[in-house]
Amino acid sequence: MISQSLAINSFQPSRRTLMGPGPSDVSNRVLDAMARPTLGHLDPEFISMMNETKELLQYVFQTKNDWTFAVSAPGSAGMECCFANMVEPGDKVIVCQNGVFGGRMRENVERCGGIPIMVTDPWGCPVDPEKVEAALKDHPDTSLVAFVHAETSTGVRSDAERLTQLAHDFGCLVIVDSVTGLVGSPLLVDDWKIDAIYSGTQKCLSAPPGLSPISFNDAAAAKIRSRKSKVQSWFLDLNLIMGYWGGDTKRSYHHTAPVNCLYGLHESLIIVNEEGLEAGWARHQDNHAYLKAGLKDLGIEFLVDESFRLPQLNSVIIPDGVDDAVVRSRLLEEFSLEIGAGLGELAGKVWRIGLMGHSSNTKNVDYCLSALKFILKEVS
Amino acid sequence: MISQSLAINSFQPSRRTLMGPGPSDVSNRVLDAMARPTLGHLDPEFISMMNETKELLQYVFQTKNDWTFAVSAPGSAGMECCFANMVEPGDKVIVCQNGVFGGRMRENVERCGGIPIMVTDPWGCPVDPEKVEAALKDHPDTSLVAFVHAETSTGVRSDAERLTQLAHDFGCLVIVDSVTGLVGSPLLVDDWKIDAIYSGTQKCLSAPPGLSPISFNDAAAAKIRSRKSKVQSWFLDLNLIMGYWGGDTKRSYHHTAPVNCLYGLHESLIIVNEEGLEAGWARHQDNHAYLKAGLKDLGIEFLVDESFRLPQLNSVIIPDGVDDAVVRSRLLEEFSLEIGAGLGELAGKVWRIGLMGHSSNTKNVDYCLSALKFILKEVS
Repeated sequence: MISQSLAINSFQPSRRTLMGPGPSDVSNRVLDAMARPTLGHLDPEFISMMNETKELLQYVFQTKNDWTFAVSAPGSAGMECCFANMVEPGDKVIVCQNGVFGGRMRENVERCGGIPIMVTDPWGCPVDPEKVEAALKDHPDTSLVAFVHAETSTGVRSDAERLTQLAHDFGCLVIVDSVTGLVGSPLLVDDWKIDAIYSGTQKCLSAPPGLSPISFNDAAAAKIRSRKSKVQSWFLDLNLIMGYWGGDTKRSYHHTAPVNCLYGLHESLIIVNEEGLEAGWARHQDNHAYLKAGLKDLGIEFLVDESFRLPQLNSVIIPDGVDDAVVRSRLLEEFSLEIGAGLGELAGKVWRIGLMGHSSNTKNVDYCLSALKFILKEVS
Repeated sequence: MISQSLAINSFQPSRRTLMGPGPSDVSNRVLDAMARPTLGHLDPEFISMMNETKELLQYVFQTKNDWTFAVSAPGSAGMECCFANMVEPGDKVIVCQNGVFGGRMRENVERCGGIPIMVTDPWGCPVDPEKVEAALKDHPDTSLVAFVHAETSTGVRSDAERLTQLAHDFGCLVIVDSVTGLVGSPLLVDDWKIDAIYSGTQKCLSAPPGLSPISFNDAAAAKIRSRKSKVQSWFLDLNLIMGYWGGDTKRSYHHTAPVNCLYGLHESLIIVNEEGLEAGWARHQDNHAYLKAGLKDLGIEFLVDESFRLPQLNSVIIPDGVDDAVVRSRLLEEFSLEIGAGLGELAGKVWRIGLMGHSSNTKNVDYCLSALKFILKEVS
């Protein structure tokens, strides 16, 4: 006797305004793409869409790297893909931590059998290149430096170009987290000589979460090809994945690609491409400035100094005496508006207001400011 | 100077009839669900949809296991999730191989630092319980037995209940691959006392690829909770994931869930639930019988003996003198019909005709038979 069927109905989610740390609002164009007919993952039509997706990702990363594609899982798996492939047991890795995601990098290094050398900066500040340089001098046998370009937990931008240059000066490769950076802020993978970088789809690309755009230069690929030990993850082993996503050779089955998610990513990349990267960066900056002016009128201050603030992710200090959870719940319930809570040591202390990708527009800024104003008046 | 934008248009895939080894045809209901507005992954509405998804997965797996959810990546990651969590370095694991996916299990065991003991059977035959019993006797220090319930590379069903009983008799837990089995053939996780099992969405559930339904019983959860070493994958560490998917506690952020893919899975599970599991199993069996009769008229024979043949995945022998690739290309180009190639040692020798989930209907059988008849006449 098998268990009986259940009384559960189709799910009809509300239409939110998503102004948290991601997912950001997904446009109808991208949602429509998600619903196109599923193809086989080896269908020639699908393969040609993969080729276009590679080209579009190369454009948004500003790279010619052949190893540029989308990992078939969210950004955390993109991070793990970088570490699992680049770190061998016993490797020393300088890990810069100035927020939640540097800590996750440390976890990755340890779980790959690497030895993390931590360089820490306060949450809300960028990675300090001088500390990194000191660590490189103290640990001349380091092989990798890992840092977060755009810290999703704080809204801080670190100087990825300078940190990469420093690492290279000491003969190290870099792994860069730009989950929140890509498309929202200038990022020039080739010019900055970044070796390995991962991102997410649900931030400034404004596609649904589920994939992790990623890119490796020749130095990174050479390191991965010449590993002494197998990559500990079969699913994320680039030596195998590149048989499917690689350039010239026949595409061979590795795992089944998330076909419809890739349709969504492809469409989101086309939208970025239509606007142009530089115009998009300027839009993110303009809407940040517009939000900043409005928040000033409300007496709300930023956590992060303007000189290294990400325009796409605004961490603001919760006013004294205001209940974090009550405000966010009421925004969601009464305005169908999502803003982000603080993470880790910033929980209860900040809100994270995202202006990412499709969510970065003046209408959203106006709506968020007026909703915040209304609720803050009620709860004060 | 940044690189210029590209001339690439929105992607409009053809509507195929998908009768390969997966993805199967996705219904409009599920495609529509994929396109619903994206919610935040901690939105109360989304959490309640996750709860429903858990209940529906418990129904299709026929289990009460609390650790029943969808891994945020395709079936291969579901496999890796089982092995990375259940295998510790030095663990002996009996791995039964009778096709491609047993081989992938071996890779997983090795990459987790385990010691695989291989029990092999010919491709096209089920796992032989007597060989497994002999291996268990030869290796009394084995802790796990891993086998494939429904081999996607051959279309063979092995006796999951008997193999699980055998493993338990020798104090071992089991890991079961039922990527192609779930919903297409009887599978009773609790009755059969299966400890850990993974599946995919793109087979008999007929949702797009990208998620891996998975379930662990209390014995498996206890083993994972009492590990001596950390799970080598942060992304797949169930000790962390269950903080997000777990039952009673507050949901805490681990990674960003693939929101829209979960909408699709939820809808596909509702469709299965509406039909009822037993009615679905009967439908898969009936359409297999209908296909079998038609193939007989064409003189096409099955690879797999009827007594352990999966109705949802039909491996048939390519007639002498017929060019595999030409036939499949012409089916795709002239009929927009996908059937599967052989994998591994069966490449060029068999076709795999899937009748999975939404694809399992008499219209598809008729269409496939008439298309095959037409092409085979032309190429013979």
